[in-house]
Amino acid sequence: MSYITDTFDVIVVGAGHAGVEAALAAARLGGKTLLATLSLDNVALMPCNPSIGGPAKGHLVRELDALGGQMGISADLACIQMRLLNTGKGYAVHALRGQEDKPFYHTLMKKIVEDQENLELKQLMIDKLLVENGAVVGVEAETGEVFEAKCVILATGTYLRGRIVYGQVNYECGPNGLRSAQKLSASLLENGVELMRFKTGTPARIDARSLDYSKMEPQYGDEEVRNFSFISDIKTREQVPCYLTYTNEATHKIIRDNLHLSGMYNGMIEGVGPRYCPSIESKIVRFANKERHQLFIEPEGRSTNEMYVQGMSSSLPAHIQLQFMQTIPGLEHCKMMRAGYAIDYDCLDPLQLRPSLEHKAISGLFSAGQSNGTSGYEEAAAQGLMAGINAMMKINGREPLVLRRDEAYIGVLIDDLVTKGTSEPYRMMTSRAEYRLLLRQDNADLRLTEKGRAIGLVDDKRYGIFTEKRTALERTVSELGKQNISPSAENNAKLDAMGTAPLRSGSSLLDLLRRKEVTYSKLQQAFGLSELAPQVAEQAEIFAKYEGYITKQRQEVERFMKLENKRLPDDIDYRAIKELSSEAAEKLDKVRPANIGQASRISGVSPADISVLMIALELKRRKEQEE
Amino acid sequence: MSYITDTFDVIVVGAGHAGVEAALAAARLGGKTLLATLSLDNVALMPCNPSIGGPAKGHLVRELDALGGQMGISADLACIQMRLLNTGKGYAVHALRGQEDKPFYHTLMKKIVEDQENLELKQLMIDKLLVENGAVVGVEAETGEVFEAKCVILATGTYLRGRIVYGQVNYECGPNGLRSAQKLSASLLENGVELMRFKTGTPARIDARSLDYSKMEPQYGDEEVRNFSFISDIKTREQVPCYLTYTNEATHKIIRDNLHLSGMYNGMIEGVGPRYCPSIESKIVRFANKERHQLFIEPEGRSTNEMYVQGMSSSLPAHIQLQFMQTIPGLEHCKMMRAGYAIDYDCLDPLQLRPSLEHKAISGLFSAGQSNGTSGYEEAAAQGLMAGINAMMKINGREPLVLRRDEAYIGVLIDDLVTKGTSEPYRMMTSRAEYRLLLRQDNADLRLTEKGRAIGLVDDKRYGIFTEKRTALERTVSELGKQNISPSAENNAKLDAMGTAPLRSGSSLLDLLRRKEVTYSKLQQAFGLSELAPQVAEQAEIFAKYEGYITKQRQEVERFMKLENKRLPDDIDYRAIKELSSEAAEKLDKVRPANIGQASRISGVSPADISVLMIALELKRRKEQEE
Ligand SMILES: Cc1cc2nc3c(=O)[nH]c(=O)nc-3n(C[C@H](O)[C@H](O)[C@H](O)COP(=O)(O)OP(=O)(O)OC[C@H]3O[C@@H](n4cnc5c(N)ncnc54)[C@H](O)[C@@H]3O)c2cc1C
Ligand SMILES: Cc1cc2nc3c(=O)[nH]c(=O)nc-3n(C[C@H](O)[C@H](O)[C@H](O)COP(=O)(O)OP(=O)(O)OC[C@H]3O[C@@H](n4cnc5c(N)ncnc54)[C@H](O)[C@@H]3O)c2cc1C
Repeated sequence: MSYITDTFDVIVVGAGHAGVEAALAAARLGGKTLLATLSLDNVALMPCNPSIGGPAKGHLVRELDALGGQMGISADLACIQMRLLNTGKGYAVHALRGQEDKPFYHTLMKKIVEDQENLELKQLMIDKLLVENGAVVGVEAETGEVFEAKCVILATGTYLRGRIVYGQVNYECGPNGLRSAQKLSASLLENGVELMRFKTGTPARIDARSLDYSKMEPQYGDEEVRNFSFISDIKTREQVPCYLTYTNEATHKIIRDNLHLSGMYNGMIEGVGPRYCPSIESKIVRFANKERHQLFIEPEGRSTNEMYVQGMSSSLPAHIQLQFMQTIPGLEHCKMMRAGYAIDYDCLDPLQLRPSLEHKAISGLFSAGQSNGTSGYEEAAAQGLMAGINAMMKINGREPLVLRRDEAYIGVLIDDLVTKGTSEPYRMMTSRAEYRLLLRQDNADLRLTEKGRAIGLVDDKRYGIFTEKRTALERTVSELGKQNISPSAENNAKLDAMGTAPLRSGSSLLDLLRRKEVTYSKLQQAFGLSELAPQVAEQAEIFAKYEGYITKQRQEVERFMKLENKRLPDDIDYRAIKELSSEAAEKLDKVRPANIGQASRISGVSPADISVLMIALELKRRKEQEE
Repeated sequence: MSYITDTFDVIVVGAGHAGVEAALAAARLGGKTLLATLSLDNVALMPCNPSIGGPAKGHLVRELDALGGQMGISADLACIQMRLLNTGKGYAVHALRGQEDKPFYHTLMKKIVEDQENLELKQLMIDKLLVENGAVVGVEAETGEVFEAKCVILATGTYLRGRIVYGQVNYECGPNGLRSAQKLSASLLENGVELMRFKTGTPARIDARSLDYSKMEPQYGDEEVRNFSFISDIKTREQVPCYLTYTNEATHKIIRDNLHLSGMYNGMIEGVGPRYCPSIESKIVRFANKERHQLFIEPEGRSTNEMYVQGMSSSLPAHIQLQFMQTIPGLEHCKMMRAGYAIDYDCLDPLQLRPSLEHKAISGLFSAGQSNGTSGYEEAAAQGLMAGINAMMKINGREPLVLRRDEAYIGVLIDDLVTKGTSEPYRMMTSRAEYRLLLRQDNADLRLTEKGRAIGLVDDKRYGIFTEKRTALERTVSELGKQNISPSAENNAKLDAMGTAPLRSGSSLLDLLRRKEVTYSKLQQAFGLSELAPQVAEQAEIFAKYEGYITKQRQEVERFMKLENKRLPDDIDYRAIKELSSEAAEKLDKVRPANIGQASRISGVSPADISVLMIALELKRRKEQEE
């Protein structure tokens, strides 16, 4: 029997990283929101690596933060080690990575969710999606309780028909021995939602007391304290080290000899695994010539001795996992506290979604996170935020917020998903972004905070901090441009002291700053400039040094935008356009791209097909004008 | 396939309150110990009430602490409100009760276990008990891993073939949506272990933000800071209030009208539920005339808004639970975060156990906690401690530590279990103890710390604190006894100021202290006595005031001891003793009591049967002398 229990604007199914952001965004935008989870004890749980950020992923966190999301702030508070990666390379690939206290992150996020106005957090097994006349109307729980809503956001992660596999172990389960959702998939299928079967895995956790630290290389956090969030004000942080070690031939031999016992290779695992986060078995098979693989031993928090073995994900039997780990320097006597495992789960084919993350065929149904075929906490959180925003945009009759590929990694992520789909768990990488120079982690606020403000998610505090920074930056650049110095002996002596060439004719300070070896702080000391907040000085330097490249990239974006602005009507009949290749017609019909730009990114759609489309569009336009 | 993975002295199956104490005790006594749990995230989890202690239960905690157990220390650290209950009544029933921060208690205990030398904590599903020639040899996990051991302690709580039931919801599960152990029961049965099916339940958790506190009565913690542990040194504690409210006729009507939907009454629940912690449905049915039932609304911790509704355990459908809760003053608009539920599970019939908690038929197999048919964290912890100790006593070829009914509530608990058995979840209550005046919470250290020291569980720090206290107490009592005061006008004026009658003849200060209105601190001020630690002064007062009663109770104990010292040989053939009633012979054969005292407490064994037994024993003794 079922009973209508309550009515909401937005219901979010799942309180993982996607669901938490979705629910917070919807509630903060004024929507009466329900956040349902299988267990109140798994809110924002990290079932795998106790870390947030890294290349491209760190960018996602900063973008989400700039828009008014939560992950950055919480990751700053729960951080036990922060590093800026790739500092040897250009600014575009600098990436923040935080080692996180896993249990504390969960506790913190749960409390933030619990305290959020308009938001109700409930432990519920959602068994059914309720759809009427092509529009979502609510969900039904296993208790028979029906919760009505204008929009439903699926953020079910790896729990849909979840199945844990390693060695001979094989049972229906969510991550970490938690309940999985066995019935919701059937209800989605009934409503015409297309599902795929994916797989992911996690390594063993080992006892910190059982390691020989003298045989591994410690990795310390940065001395300079940095934060993900543009509004975090954390200035000191006690940090713990991670440890670097390597596999070797003995490790590889054990794995090779036992491959037939791995769920990955004996057919027990149905789902498609992640290419960029493979199991150790896959690495040994795919990179057979590689002599060693890097492993990081990472603490899971301050309150536990569990250590995560990054790089060692496996579905081999527990005793084999222990055996091969004990071949590794530092791990010779390691004790295994939890065995690694693989998990198989259902997720949505993201090609069914619009760029707003709304389902094309079911009005009001959104989906975000691992349930869209991605992997990773940051990917999940970023989609969750966008789904939460766009559910509220829909309810309020406003245009969805769709970020372009030149505006944000979030835009790249979602565009990739809804345009190209994915045949394996999708992971964000800097190489996926065309406009890396524009999409830096340091300028996420400059790119996105105005947008967050316009939709109502950026509060006065954040906006105040942001506008102050932006004003200071603009003033600084303008003043540096105006301040000319002459090639006097005195000035050239100062330049010499800075380690840069003397002037022959007058130059603005801004032009001086373009030189590699000149920093704002050097100029400041030499020419008595005013002191600046470090982020402002950094932005001014980046602006000066990269202006040329950035301008070039912006020109590319403009060309890109021309295609992006050519909208393709919803009702276009691709199969009727004879000149299209049949593969292109089929793919276009499935994806139903929003514009020519999106169409051009669909794999199987050639430049020739795009020309055909442009002509067809032009003919359509003329015909409509004549009518 | 199975593989021998490792070898231990003691394996503890289950890391609940029983398992944690068992493992810590075994490891601290030098045993190489494995602690296996279904999930590392449920170590010392409180699946129900976020509180420790209360009448009789608080006594258990102090006794366990006096012996060198852990619960008291951890409960002090995680406490968010402490009260000494029953202060209006005699010292014997004074009882400490701590409101606990549930997630923090788990985190703390997990770290203590992780840090314990000799102890290995592992996430493992144990599927099989391995027995050879009537003796336990180890366990096998679902992974195929075999762990060998000299002793195995079962502490499986409510997880054996656990099944959650409320309304239409009914699925195999442990508490809180965690995995249950579906296979171990069959292996126990195969090895001749007898199982019973019990049931327990938990109420809903509601959102702290949704309550109207003006309609409930706040319950604050005591101003005086007290601790469970004799070695805790916590002197200040920030406390949170609980809230008292009541059910009413409207609540009862909804429950009565929906009884047919309760798992308790529609046949969905097989297990026998706890008489002393009944569901609200049972209370409404069994106490039909009662106009209202008391409810306490208790915070689950500092880091969450979840509130526990004590007294409201239910297996009614979720929407009915919400409906009847909303009839309660203060809860009119409450939001339900988790629904209440009942859980059915397998446990051992404790009649199979010796007073050491070892199984009679399977050498080296111990069992402790909810798996012995008890309910409650403290009951579990107390048994766990004793099982851990006695496994190590066995391994070291020493006599088991068996506490007598006059020595400890722990003795009463275990004697009740192994002598009388239980047909419903057994809960400790002061009324179960015959010698309440001896078994006070304030003197648990005086009763037990020497024993803990003798077995090696009391470390130097605890023993130092203890002997210092004991010495001070003995010196104080002796000095008070020697110090005589005369009936001088000066002295009588002092007594008058104390509010007590004047002296007619000389009296010792000890005799004065026997008077109800005289306290040590009054004597101290009036007669310039030395300052004492508050616990010492309290003990001296209790000694003086209750000496008569205590002496009387000790005489009773001596009579009791006479029977308790008459040991019954293991090989006695009760069915051959014609003069016994057939019921007595059957029960005696099943329980196989260790002595006449234990035999006399078996229900169905009459005083006449005991006389018969004494005669049979005497005849046996004579016969053996003659041979
Ligand atoms: C074993 C494992 C290994 C992983 N390894 C990696 C890795 O190496 N690298 C990487 O980047 N990522 C990895 N991931 C992926 C990463 O954990 C996820 O991408 C991330 O947690 C996804 O967040 P999410 O919010 O989409 O889903 P989740 O965090 O999985 O949250 C899903 C939520 O949905 C809820 N839910 C599901 N169904 C229902 C229902 N019917 N009713 C109510 N609630 C429901 C659950 O209770 C949960 O709250 C791994 C995940 C797992 C499980
Ligand atoms: C829903 C509910 C309501 C309750 N209500 C009350 C109440 O109102 N009042 C009260 O006093 N008590 C109540 N209790 C009882 C109280 O919670 C328990 O008595 C107490 O937790 C028992 O402790 P334990 O150590 O015996 O078992 P648990 O705390 O249940 O721990 C059992 C442990 O065994 C492990 N385990 C089980 N099987 C295996 C296996 N095969 N392999 C490996 N590990 C295994 C589990 O992982 C777990 O760590 C309730 C319990 C539940 C679940």
